[in-house]
Amino acid sequence: MDGGFMRLAIAEAEKALAIGEIPVGAVVVRGGRVIGSGHNLRERDKNPLLHAELIAISRAAEAVGDWRLNGCDIYVTLEPCVMCSGAILSARMDNVIFGAYDPEYGAAGGRLDLFARRCYGGVTRVVGGVMENECAEILNRFFSAIRSPDKN
Amino acid sequence: MDGGFMRLAIAEAEKALAIGEIPVGAVVVRGGRVIGSGHNLRERDKNPLLHAELIAISRAAEAVGDWRLNGCDIYVTLEPCVMCSGAILSARMDNVIFGAYDPEYGAAGGRLDLFARRCYGGVTRVVGGVMENECAEILNRFFSAIRSPDKN
Repeated sequence: MDGGFMRLAIAEAEKALAIGEIPVGAVVVRGGRVIGSGHNLRERDKNPLLHAELIAISRAAEAVGDWRLNGCDIYVTLEPCVMCSGAILSARMDNVIFGAYDPEYGAAGGRLDLFARRCYGGVTRVVGGVMENECAEILNRFFSAIRSPDKN
Repeated sequence: MDGGFMRLAIAEAEKALAIGEIPVGAVVVRGGRVIGSGHNLRERDKNPLLHAELIAISRAAEAVGDWRLNGCDIYVTLEPCVMCSGAILSARMDNVIFGAYDPEYGAAGGRLDLFARRCYGGVTRVVGGVMENECAEILNRFFSAIRSPDKN
């Protein structure tokens, strides 16, 4: 675990914020190096699959040349949803490190814990709450702006 | 629900079988018309996201021009895994109709039931076991061939 990688994930989230997407960012790391990164593009590309994690995972798989991402960790600013948690498990990643908990949609301990079930015989470990305030703050900025459009 | 659409999903699964992928196929239907289809391409494209359902959903979203797939049903030959169930819920699809149950990885009643939890306040309904024998048979052909390579 490394705060530097979470900072890179936050930088990805900032890119999403700048274009009006719910600001979530993710990076995939292997051997101390970022091999895939992404930010939420669901609205821009009108595609329900384009969460930050799925984009980062897809790019990491391309970099590795394998759908199996053993030996890889994913850093994400918000707790993964069901879809993204399933993707992390399917890709057999080593660790998921997330920032803010998501009590509504989180599937890594916030609402559900799909990792505890070991659905895939997986060994993905979870660390939540890393740089939690910084990760939550960017989400708060987004939702505050939506709720108070007059103040923009 | 329509057996004809499941036959189209089976035809997709046959395409996967022909190229040595685990044979799963899916079609997304809206207003009686197929707007997206896909088959498993995880091995060929070395990408953990390329399950039949995710490919079909992505194409359907492109056809509709919206990440919200309300009013759409997905027909899939095998019970969706966690990742694909999450994608179906995230896309707010109306119905998921699947063929064979998957007691190991299924997340729509076989092992888990993510749809019962209504994680997303979703209203996706599930019908399992449609043309179950036909859908299971194609999977059996694949796994029998793997287990008995000398007989090929």
